[in-house]
Amino acid sequence: MSEAPTIGMLPPVNADGDSPLAIIAGGGSIPIAVAEAVTQRGRRVVMFPVRGWADPAAVEKFAHYWLPLAQANVFRRHARAEGCRDVVFVGTALRPPLRSLRIDWLTLRLLPRVVRAYRGGDDHLISGVARVFEDYGFRIVAPHQIAPEILMPIGPVGSLSPSERDHVDIARALALLEATGPFDMGQAAVVAANHVLAVEGAEGTDAMLGRVAELRAKGRIATPTGIGVLVKAPKPGQDRRFDLPAIGPRTVEEAARAGLAGIAVLAGAAIIAEPLAVAAVADRAKIFVTGVAEQAAQ
Amino acid sequence: MSEAPTIGMLPPVNADGDSPLAIIAGGGSIPIAVAEAVTQRGRRVVMFPVRGWADPAAVEKFAHYWLPLAQANVFRRHARAEGCRDVVFVGTALRPPLRSLRIDWLTLRLLPRVVRAYRGGDDHLISGVARVFEDYGFRIVAPHQIAPEILMPIGPVGSLSPSERDHVDIARALALLEATGPFDMGQAAVVAANHVLAVEGAEGTDAMLGRVAELRAKGRIATPTGIGVLVKAPKPGQDRRFDLPAIGPRTVEEAARAGLAGIAVLAGAAIIAEPLAVAAVADRAKIFVTGVAEQAAQ
Repeated sequence: MSEAPTIGMLPPVNADGDSPLAIIAGGGSIPIAVAEAVTQRGRRVVMFPVRGWADPAAVEKFAHYWLPLAQANVFRRHARAEGCRDVVFVGTALRPPLRSLRIDWLTLRLLPRVVRAYRGGDDHLISGVARVFEDYGFRIVAPHQIAPEILMPIGPVGSLSPSERDHVDIARALALLEATGPFDMGQAAVVAANHVLAVEGAEGTDAMLGRVAELRAKGRIATPTGIGVLVKAPKPGQDRRFDLPAIGPRTVEEAARAGLAGIAVLAGAAIIAEPLAVAAVADRAKIFVTGVAEQAAQ
Repeated sequence: MSEAPTIGMLPPVNADGDSPLAIIAGGGSIPIAVAEAVTQRGRRVVMFPVRGWADPAAVEKFAHYWLPLAQANVFRRHARAEGCRDVVFVGTALRPPLRSLRIDWLTLRLLPRVVRAYRGGDDHLISGVARVFEDYGFRIVAPHQIAPEILMPIGPVGSLSPSERDHVDIARALALLEATGPFDMGQAAVVAANHVLAVEGAEGTDAMLGRVAELRAKGRIATPTGIGVLVKAPKPGQDRRFDLPAIGPRTVEEAARAGLAGIAVLAGAAIIAEPLAVAAVADRAKIFVTGVAEQAAQ
């Protein structure tokens, strides 16, 4: 029995691309938002929640197979049996310590490549993993190719809009994210009255906002509550099939707790989970959530 | 009685510049290191610890006057009475909420300028404040002009040196700090195996290292303990009379707790407090502390 990658081993897929969609699901609410949007479009979804990242309660209502990290053959077996050809990667991924992985024989063969991928930043790691899937005949698709309605629209979500001062902060944060892009790090920054309060590193957006809230509680932030923005944008040149920035109701709650005026996200280049809930939370907290045009950002 | 700035109102200073040195002291151990170095050189020191920032125990052994924030006349009165002409700003400064300041009449007159300065980043704020002092006839000098021995030397402090891999991480962190320089934010970053773990925002270096330690404890950092560097460097084009990056024994302890291989600092462009203690703590923790040449960094 050969384990060599041959597309011929996959079940046939019809031209309309309506084979079931495999969703490799990290943490947070975005994978569920994608699964629901795809299901509503009438396409079957098979979830592959990653153990330790995905929320067990969230995946229960979909067909699903838990995926241990670094066990590529578990995915391959179930995805083939289910007739999946298209694969979406979505949700929060944590960079696990290499030594903590229980690595299966298939992954072991791929390990030199994974180790090389580990040496770079997140983009590097993700594209390395993606190539492995493609070698095995799967097609990696972007979540928004499958369900474009999950993309952040242009303009405000909810009833508030950024002020002129907020626009200055938004422009500065976008310029900063542009400058840090080549370093393949976070996709988010907080700027208040032109002053950079925080840049996302390995900790994630929610933790970064928690830090701003803490600094504010300690009286370490000069600007009063209601000034400052969280800005999220993909890295320049990033492969947009993976790791698009995302916001959801929780992001809005954390931004409000950090005392910010609002959230700006590059429209069409980020995912918004539960937009109605986002609008409701934003209105209740009296902060804006807005999609800014990519051209305007440059 | 005129309050206009006239140098003629200041006591005469002899050509050797041995008027007492006024040290406006923020938090941390660096102001004490500077005061001790200057005292050892035979020059009298008058400390102006800033209330809420400086450590009361630390300033006790020097002549000192507590300085409430935004009370410029308190400084001017005592500094003139003591015959000080040169002023050094050193130590951790927190950006206080403007509304929390009890502002005196002299500062009030200067307020439009301070408010303008607040709108920019730290550099902007600091240079705005500095100009105010200069208008009143004081001369702002850099700590290292007064006591060059407090500058970080080239090469290792302690017995360990960075490995080849560490040098790659150091170069990446220096390039990142170069890129974020125009945004007038932190002066420190943590890079491990070419992966940016953290960039300093408003939280300060110790808090940033604490974050890395926390991420590591939660298993969120891929690289094992003993890989990764803290790099500190001034912003490109920064006025080096103010806010030079600084390290001390506490920095080394926090870097060790964060599981890093070591600390690299731009030699000649950063302050090292208590170098002997730094070396001892570094050797005990088995991490390197090294000064990298500015040219090599570019």
